[in-house]
Amino acid sequence: MSLRFAKRMDNMRASEIREMLKLTQRPEVISFAGGLPAPELFPVEEMKDVFVKVMEEYGRIALQYGPTEGYEPLREKILDRMVKVKVDKLTTDNILITSGSQQGLDFVAKAFINPGDVILCESPTYLGAINAFRAYEPRFVEVETDDEGMILEDLEKKLEENENVKFIYAIPDFQNPSGRTMSIERRKGLVELANKYNVAIVEDNPYGELRFEGEINPAIMHFDTEGRVIFLGTFSKIFSPGLRVGWIAAEKEVLKKFVLIKQGADLQSATVNQIAVAKFLDDFDIEVHIDKIKNVYKRRKDLMLNTIREEFPEGIKVTDPDGGLFTWVVLPKHINARELAAKALEKNVAYVPGGSFFPNGGNENTFRVNYSNMEEERIVEGVKRLAQVIKEALTEVRA
Amino acid sequence: MSLRFAKRMDNMRASEIREMLKLTQRPEVISFAGGLPAPELFPVEEMKDVFVKVMEEYGRIALQYGPTEGYEPLREKILDRMVKVKVDKLTTDNILITSGSQQGLDFVAKAFINPGDVILCESPTYLGAINAFRAYEPRFVEVETDDEGMILEDLEKKLEENENVKFIYAIPDFQNPSGRTMSIERRKGLVELANKYNVAIVEDNPYGELRFEGEINPAIMHFDTEGRVIFLGTFSKIFSPGLRVGWIAAEKEVLKKFVLIKQGADLQSATVNQIAVAKFLDDFDIEVHIDKIKNVYKRRKDLMLNTIREEFPEGIKVTDPDGGLFTWVVLPKHINARELAAKALEKNVAYVPGGSFFPNGGNENTFRVNYSNMEEERIVEGVKRLAQVIKEALTEVRA
Repeated sequence: MSLRFAKRMDNMRASEIREMLKLTQRPEVISFAGGLPAPELFPVEEMKDVFVKVMEEYGRIALQYGPTEGYEPLREKILDRMVKVKVDKLTTDNILITSGSQQGLDFVAKAFINPGDVILCESPTYLGAINAFRAYEPRFVEVETDDEGMILEDLEKKLEENENVKFIYAIPDFQNPSGRTMSIERRKGLVELANKYNVAIVEDNPYGELRFEGEINPAIMHFDTEGRVIFLGTFSKIFSPGLRVGWIAAEKEVLKKFVLIKQGADLQSATVNQIAVAKFLDDFDIEVHIDKIKNVYKRRKDLMLNTIREEFPEGIKVTDPDGGLFTWVVLPKHINARELAAKALEKNVAYVPGGSFFPNGGNENTFRVNYSNMEEERIVEGVKRLAQVIKEALTEVRA
Repeated sequence: MSLRFAKRMDNMRASEIREMLKLTQRPEVISFAGGLPAPELFPVEEMKDVFVKVMEEYGRIALQYGPTEGYEPLREKILDRMVKVKVDKLTTDNILITSGSQQGLDFVAKAFINPGDVILCESPTYLGAINAFRAYEPRFVEVETDDEGMILEDLEKKLEENENVKFIYAIPDFQNPSGRTMSIERRKGLVELANKYNVAIVEDNPYGELRFEGEINPAIMHFDTEGRVIFLGTFSKIFSPGLRVGWIAAEKEVLKKFVLIKQGADLQSATVNQIAVAKFLDDFDIEVHIDKIKNVYKRRKDLMLNTIREEFPEGIKVTDPDGGLFTWVVLPKHINARELAAKALEKNVAYVPGGSFFPNGGNENTFRVNYSNMEEERIVEGVKRLAQVIKEALTEVRA
C-alpha cells in the first residue's frame, strides 16, 4: 500500500533546527541552536493569577467557540503594540488573531502563491518561513543584503527580472538569522519599490520591541500608504510562545481574505489563551516585563560578543545585534559549518548551520547562534569550545 | 492598488454558518443554527483547579515552545480515546496533536490534493470540511447516502468512474449535518473498497463517544488493515472547543507527513492547553463528564423530536439521531429552505439551510437543526415557530 500524496509534499522536509534540537537536549550540551525565549523570565505566578480570573470571570466563554477574527478586547490591545512600532491608523478590523506568527507565514503563502510564483526574500532568511512557504511551491529569489538589510538596487533588479513576484518577505529588526536591522531609509525604499512594481510586502516582526537601547524602529508598515504591507506580529518573544497567540495586521479587505483562510485552517485560535493574554495586559504592565527580557538578553548578548572577540581567531565576521535573540557568524569561505557542527556536538556545543537559511543553498561557511536561552557561565564556556573547534578546523585546512 | 491573490482564493467563501451565527446572536432569537456544545456543562471549576496546577507544576514548560508532535503524556492519553472506538493497536507515534479537528481537515487536503483531484464525500457533508478542502481546489464527487450512510454501490461506481480520487471523506457517527450513523457493515465495505481502489479514507469522528444509548461503534479505522484510514479526533465536543485540542491518528509513515505540515502551519498547538487537557484527564473522570453531556443532549433531542412530531405538518422527513448534536429536516421538494430561513428569522428562530452542505449544490429543501445548545423551553417554542413558518410556506405554495 502506498498512498498518493500531493505534489507539494515533495518539497517539504523536516526543519533542520527542530531535528537538531532533539540531539541537543542532552543536559551536557551547551546549545546555541534553538530560538527559545528564556523560560526563567516567563511570568508564571502572574499567569496563575490570570488563569484563575479567566475561569472565574469568563469560564463558559473561555471554554467555548469564539469568533474566527479573534477575541475583540485582545484585538483592541494589539492596536497598542502596533502603535509601539509607529503604526497608528489601524482599527480592530485590521487585526486577525493567529496561532503564533508562524501561522501568519502559512497564510500569506496560501493567500498569494500559485505554484511557480516568486517570493523575494532576504538572503539569508528565516528557515521556518522557507518551510511554510515551500508547501505552496513558490520559486525563491534571494535579495542581497548588507548590514542595513536588503540592498535596494539588487531588490529592484530582481523585481524587474522576475515575473509573478507576489510578495517581498522581510524581517526588519534583528533579523533571524543574521541579527541585522534594516535601516529606515531602506524601509522607505522598500515600500516605494513595492508600490512601483505592485507587489505585497510581508513584514515579519517578532523582535521589534526587543531593542536593547534607544527608540524602537518604525515598522515597514509605518511607511505604507497603499495598504500593501501585511504585518505579522506575535506575543511569543515578548511574553510566551506556549500560548500560541500572534496576529496579522493588514488592510481591511486584505484581512478578510485571511479571515476566510483562518476559518478553513482551524476555525479560530484558542479562546482561553486569547482571553488570558488580554487579561494579563489588563492586570500587569507588559512594558516592565519587556524591559526585564531586554536587560537579560542584552547582558547575554554582550557577554557572548565579548567572549567571541576574545576567543575566536581572526578573519571571522560576527554580527553585533541591537536587539533580538540571535547573532550570525561568517567563517572563511573554505570552512563548512555543517561539517563543523558535528565536531562541535562532539564537544557538546551546538549551533544551526547557516546554509539552511538560504532557500537556494550555498553559504555553507555561516552559522546562527542564539544567546537568549543560556545562562551566562555556559555562554562563556560554549563560545570557548566553539572557538577551539574553529581553530582546529582552520589548522587542519592549512595542514 | 489591487494585490494579486492566488487562484485558490477564488474558491473560498465565508462559511454560511459563521455568518448566520452573527445574525442570530440577538438574545430574542432561538437559534438552532450553531453547532456549539452546551456551555453550562463545561467543567469550569475543575479547569480553574487544573490551570492552577499546570502553572504551579509545569509553568515554565507550559509557557514555552514544545514539540511539534504534541505533549507526550497527552498523546498517551489519546490512545485511551482511540480504544473507546475500538482502535487498540496504536502507539504515540501514531498521534499528532492538532488545533481542533478542523486543522486535521485542512491538513488532509494539503497532504493529498493537487488541483483537480477528487474527494469522494457523503451527500450531504460537513460544511467546514467543504470550506477547508476548497482551498486546495479539489473536485467534489458526492456519494449517495441513506439511513445507513454511504451507499456502497454508488461509492464503487464513483471510484470506478473518477480518476485521481485521493480520499473518501466520511463522518461515521451522528453525521454533521444529517444526524445519521454509518452501519457496521457499511464501514467494513468502505474499507474494502478503499483497499481495492487504493485510496485513503479520512474518518472525521468528533461525535462517536456521544452515543446516547448502547455501545459506542467501532471506528472505520477499526476495520483498517492497511494503514489507509486517517482518523480525526477532538476534545471539542466531549470537553471544550475553546481549548482547540484535537488530533490526527494515522499510520506512522503517514503521520510523519502531517508532522511536517504542522511544523510549517503553526509549529505546534498551544503547550499550556495540551498540558491542561492531560491534567484534567489525570485528575477528573472524563467518562462521568461525557455521561453528563449525553444525558442532557439526549433529553434535548427527545424533546425536539417529540415536538417536531407533534407540530410539523405531514410529509416532512426528520432524522432521529442516536447521538451527537444535530438533526436534519427534509421538506417537500418545492419548498426552498434558504428562503424559508429569512422568514424564520423574522419570527426569531434560526437554522442552517441544508443546501450549503452539498458541495455541488442542490437539495435546497433541507435544513440542519442543532439541539445541544438550547434550553428545553426554548426548544419547544422554537420548534413551534418553525412549524408555523413551514405550514405557512406550504399554504402559500398551494394558494
